[in-house]
Amino acid sequence: MKWSRRFRPMDDFSISQRLASNHFLFSNGCLRRNLGKSGLRVSCLGLGTWVTFGGQISDEVAEQLMTIAYESGVNLFDTAEVYSGGKAEIILGNIIKKKCWRRSSLVITTKLYWGGKAETERGLNRKHIIEGLRSSLQRMQLEYVDVVFANRPDSNTPMEEIVRSMTHVINQGMSMYWGTSRWSAMEIMEAYSVARQFNLIPPVCEQAEYHFFQRDKVETQLPELYHKIGVGVVSWSPLACGIITGKYENGVPESSRASMKPYQWLREKILSEDGRKQQAKLKELTYVAEKLGCTLPQLAIAWCLRNEGVSSVLLGSSNPIQLTENLGAIQVIPKMTAGIASEVDQILGNRPHSKKDYQH
Amino acid sequence: MKWSRRFRPMDDFSISQRLASNHFLFSNGCLRRNLGKSGLRVSCLGLGTWVTFGGQISDEVAEQLMTIAYESGVNLFDTAEVYSGGKAEIILGNIIKKKCWRRSSLVITTKLYWGGKAETERGLNRKHIIEGLRSSLQRMQLEYVDVVFANRPDSNTPMEEIVRSMTHVINQGMSMYWGTSRWSAMEIMEAYSVARQFNLIPPVCEQAEYHFFQRDKVETQLPELYHKIGVGVVSWSPLACGIITGKYENGVPESSRASMKPYQWLREKILSEDGRKQQAKLKELTYVAEKLGCTLPQLAIAWCLRNEGVSSVLLGSSNPIQLTENLGAIQVIPKMTAGIASEVDQILGNRPHSKKDYQH
Amino acid sequence: MKWSRRFRPMDDFSISQRLASNHFLFSNGCLRRNLGKSGLRVSCLGLGTWVTFGGQISDEVAEQLMTIAYESGVNLFDTAEVYSGGKAEIILGNIIKKKCWRRSSLVITTKLYWGGKAETERGLNRKHIIEGLRSSLQRMQLEYVDVVFANRPDSNTPMEEIVRSMTHVINQGMSMYWGTSRWSAMEIMEAYSVARQFNLIPPVCEQAEYHFFQRDKVETQLPELYHKIGVGVVSWSPLACGIITGKYENGVPESSRASMKPYQWLREKILSEDGRKQQAKLKELTYVAEKLGCTLPQLAIAWCLRNEGVSSVLLGSSNPIQLTENLGAIQVIPKMTAGIASEVDQILGNRPHSKKDYQH
Amino acid sequence: MKWSRRFRPMDDFSISQRLASNHFLFSNGCLRRNLGKSGLRVSCLGLGTWVTFGGQISDEVAEQLMTIAYESGVNLFDTAEVYSGGKAEIILGNIIKKKCWRRSSLVITTKLYWGGKAETERGLNRKHIIEGLRSSLQRMQLEYVDVVFANRPDSNTPMEEIVRSMTHVINQGMSMYWGTSRWSAMEIMEAYSVARQFNLIPPVCEQAEYHFFQRDKVETQLPELYHKIGVGVVSWSPLACGIITGKYENGVPESSRASMKPYQWLREKILSEDGRKQQAKLKELTYVAEKLGCTLPQLAIAWCLRNEGVSSVLLGSSNPIQLTENLGAIQVIPKMTAGIASEVDQILGNRPHSKKDYQH
Repeated sequence: MKWSRRFRPMDDFSISQRLASNHFLFSNGCLRRNLGKSGLRVSCLGLGTWVTFGGQISDEVAEQLMTIAYESGVNLFDTAEVYSGGKAEIILGNIIKKKCWRRSSLVITTKLYWGGKAETERGLNRKHIIEGLRSSLQRMQLEYVDVVFANRPDSNTPMEEIVRSMTHVINQGMSMYWGTSRWSAMEIMEAYSVARQFNLIPPVCEQAEYHFFQRDKVETQLPELYHKIGVGVVSWSPLACGIITGKYENGVPESSRASMKPYQWLREKILSEDGRKQQAKLKELTYVAEKLGCTLPQLAIAWCLRNEGVSSVLLGSSNPIQLTENLGAIQVIPKMTAGIASEVDQILGNRPHSKKDYQH
Repeated sequence: MKWSRRFRPMDDFSISQRLASNHFLFSNGCLRRNLGKSGLRVSCLGLGTWVTFGGQISDEVAEQLMTIAYESGVNLFDTAEVYSGGKAEIILGNIIKKKCWRRSSLVITTKLYWGGKAETERGLNRKHIIEGLRSSLQRMQLEYVDVVFANRPDSNTPMEEIVRSMTHVINQGMSMYWGTSRWSAMEIMEAYSVARQFNLIPPVCEQAEYHFFQRDKVETQLPELYHKIGVGVVSWSPLACGIITGKYENGVPESSRASMKPYQWLREKILSEDGRKQQAKLKELTYVAEKLGCTLPQLAIAWCLRNEGVSSVLLGSSNPIQLTENLGAIQVIPKMTAGIASEVDQILGNRPHSKKDYQH
Repeated sequence: MKWSRRFRPMDDFSISQRLASNHFLFSNGCLRRNLGKSGLRVSCLGLGTWVTFGGQISDEVAEQLMTIAYESGVNLFDTAEVYSGGKAEIILGNIIKKKCWRRSSLVITTKLYWGGKAETERGLNRKHIIEGLRSSLQRMQLEYVDVVFANRPDSNTPMEEIVRSMTHVINQGMSMYWGTSRWSAMEIMEAYSVARQFNLIPPVCEQAEYHFFQRDKVETQLPELYHKIGVGVVSWSPLACGIITGKYENGVPESSRASMKPYQWLREKILSEDGRKQQAKLKELTYVAEKLGCTLPQLAIAWCLRNEGVSSVLLGSSNPIQLTENLGAIQVIPKMTAGIASEVDQILGNRPHSKKDYQH
Repeated sequence: MKWSRRFRPMDDFSISQRLASNHFLFSNGCLRRNLGKSGLRVSCLGLGTWVTFGGQISDEVAEQLMTIAYESGVNLFDTAEVYSGGKAEIILGNIIKKKCWRRSSLVITTKLYWGGKAETERGLNRKHIIEGLRSSLQRMQLEYVDVVFANRPDSNTPMEEIVRSMTHVINQGMSMYWGTSRWSAMEIMEAYSVARQFNLIPPVCEQAEYHFFQRDKVETQLPELYHKIGVGVVSWSPLACGIITGKYENGVPESSRASMKPYQWLREKILSEDGRKQQAKLKELTYVAEKLGCTLPQLAIAWCLRNEGVSSVLLGSSNPIQLTENLGAIQVIPKMTAGIASEVDQILGNRPHSKKDYQH
């Protein structure tokens, strides 16, 4: 019982059993999983465009990254209207067009909230959901996306308006599904409740930060949603904005993102006491990675996927070598046994636990 | 608790608190408020086009007025199919096109009821709601409006048909929201009831006359609707068709609107005993305005906005100087304390009150 | 069209037509009407117990009054938990038991709101509706009432809770129908809306004050409810707490109710300028009554019933002679033509009118 | 707007305003509040029976405690089927019967989950909710309770079954309302969602631990539920199982609860490092209490009630002197200004805060 409501690590048996079933299917090397309990099959690794597309990297590198990903079996590409002020969507759209990939072989997702300077151009009110998605589609030169996400909750708009508007853009053919990003379990449940009450379309998935050092929401709150209402997880930042690569082991190198002005908060985080404790744990985890014959980032990515509620992990690489390495995590997934998971838990020391009950 | 059901004047504390919160945000100088409890953020002052556009004023002046308003942060522009026989919409549309303002930065609203001479061209029947809105959009050269209003109730059409038709034009993408104009609280509640019963879209706001001498509906009936079903108010005639400008202090000047033939009723109203009493009160209110360092019209406009259920006040100026002065009311809003409101109440002597209960 | 939304006086033709139809049926001399659009047929005159039962009059007089009424064809007897602190219900119940009238020949109604000193013993919360009605039934020695009324609105209890609780007591067999008393049209519409939304039982009727000098609510707001959602009116105080009897023509006699301490407000009302103007109008109305060959109170009662939305008029007599006279109003109803109604209107000068529309 | 979604401390103005309005009414000295947004008015202090009734204290003391409470204006008495193996309910019922208090003046609540040794006698399945409540009512010699609580969540029973069963016992007249105890915000929202989907009765309130050292759930999660779906809080353990009385300032005295075997966990908590830090903070809070002219426990209790979502605080005293002192907290409530609340916050250093947003 308990397991059905919390995170359930897969034992060796279930892994092999699932490999035999159609739950995991290899397609060009990358496993497929259902997006939540929807019927949509997404690659268990996806490519994000945050910071990179239209920003950190050139359009050529962007194209290389997408090509490597696509040819490795990745079908999920995620962006947002706010990324690089709309440029991420433009570049993504250009590449798709240029490469002539079949639209039906791709799962394209974008996110809405911050669309422009005017107050009517942001938030999750009906006007912005419709106008914002229309603009996103124009930038990407697409007729529709596969999933449109609410990029954050909007306490300023009634939930009924949000769910009605998401249902509207789906009914208009502008998107196939809708999801949430950085919403609390309660907010997602409220959206589901409103959808059921008014016979509207409920969300299929939540985008959430998830990595070694940020486990709580994905491991304690979201599994309940997955089991009860079928909402899955697309996780982001598997390497904790680069912290888990090990590159900050000896401070913050000048070339790294954390040395850039807008990432002052990241720099501070790394150099804090907590940050140094994390580096120590990463050192220990390196031995686990070595034991499995993989790199630390690969271990970190595969570790996210041991959680069956996680439909896909978004990678955010800025260069082809790094991306190729990260994609190699796919080979590690079958080695992610309950034993390894518990070894990782002991090193991290942050496994979320349920509270002891007493009879008040 | 009691407060939640009737008009609640804002005390100094709540004003400053709200200014600090994101309920009110300055955007080019004009505060934003939610349209009712919808997520749409409208400027607390809007520009109406009644009598002026296509009538009293030239197209050039119309463009000047819209430009001043837009550049002062006004995003709400209101018109109706019946204004100047459709010309108001044509002019409004031409200006928007010429100025190249982003559609998503504008909140355009129109109103339907009297669309033409044929009986099939008026009322709130399905045929006229669809045909009428389509014609309005053509005249304005727009794909959609943000709010379509039923310009008056239509006892001749079943409420179910009205709400179904409004829901239809919204689902067709011809409007984002719908509202009512000059409906009774009961009629609005009936529309809401029908929307809930058949899972249709309820109205978000009522357009109502509201000024010093017309308070009852907005202060006693509509607050209940706002708190119960989220229907807000867009108010019009803040200066009581010009009565509150003070220009009728010594009778009706020849150049004024009230001297025009179709405004015979206005002339009569001004010259009546009630009209003369009003002029005396306005004189007293001038002292309050002076104390706040503003003009009487500015006081009158800011006074409307002390009511939190009022989302926006439509201004109906016919010349740039007057409009600029009226827009100055924005500076007066923070000075509209409970103390000032009660001073105004004492002068007006028409504060609506609740009835004493006895145990029948 | 207009007529369907406002009060419609009956012309001579419709009277005779209706007399022929089954809308009015004589039963022992007292016409029957449907209670709102429900199927329940109530006598168009009913007997109230406010002030009198358990207060002003002895139990013997109470029995005489009920007997006269019942034998004149009155089937509707109204009381409330608050009347004389519960004594009115006890006396009513004792008389019914003693007289051995068939329960099925009676329409017994009571009203809930003020049930006791504790705060849990008042209001329209679920606890008090259930406990209060149970106590009322015990006092009356009845298994059920025919209509239970909410004696006033309760802004402190959600409408859903009120409607659910009223539906519950009906489903439990404690009442046949439910109604409202002194609710606004908006509140009744909200109750209807909630009933439709959650498939609960809507109210069938509103108890409202209605007489020559209090016309607004019953003539302008309630007809709309009657036509739209079938809510009828049971009116009370047809003689304006005795003002219309003419007994206050020359001031307030010592023996009258208005000379009693708790009715200080009534005394003041009578002696006010408004009160004196009313006496002048009543003098004029006496001539109309003479023309019809009836007394002024009979005219006043019959006048209430010219309004087809009024299902029944509650009489509140304190002695048999007065009651017999009042019941004589039944003979006057057929004489209440549109011509007479308009004559009365001219004398009263308070006919509510609709506002002129203009094309804003 | 922001305030409406999170905990809102009351400033001096709103306190005095509310005291003047009918939101709070003194009744025998104890303020009334609505139970959540239901219409039921409960005393803001209630008497719990956990550990005490049928356990720590004699039946005579239990009677003394209930009498003191009732005569001080407390109307809320809480128990559970599991307390002292059912004995708490028996004693509570005996006292009510003996004292002849009007049932309608009392709000009696009990809680279901652990009803017996057999597995069919526990949990929130339909069988146990019906059988368990029936047994509770028999033990208490009552026809119904006012609120029946689910004593904890039951992941083993589908939410639909729980909500259907709660609705069933309410429809059967065995309870007036239902609530939850120690459920997460998500679980409560799910119950609400199911109630709306199937037109069942939603819960009105959550019982939650709330005191100086346990603030998170009541201050960050439950306010959202209160504002969105009207679910209020009945809080328990205002003195943190006695920790806040100050009696553990110098360790664990032999006579105290914490020295008893089953309260080993409490002893450990007190003697831990965290426990010692808490004692230091309590010392500082004593000065705040002195400034307000009250005791530390009175401050702690009044502090809970500054949160408008808290309908009532359950006291768990084991002797009359202590209870009388605790009830004195009522006098402290009006002194609980925003200033004092913020002073307490600074001493405690655990005010829950919202997270900073960034544009992922």
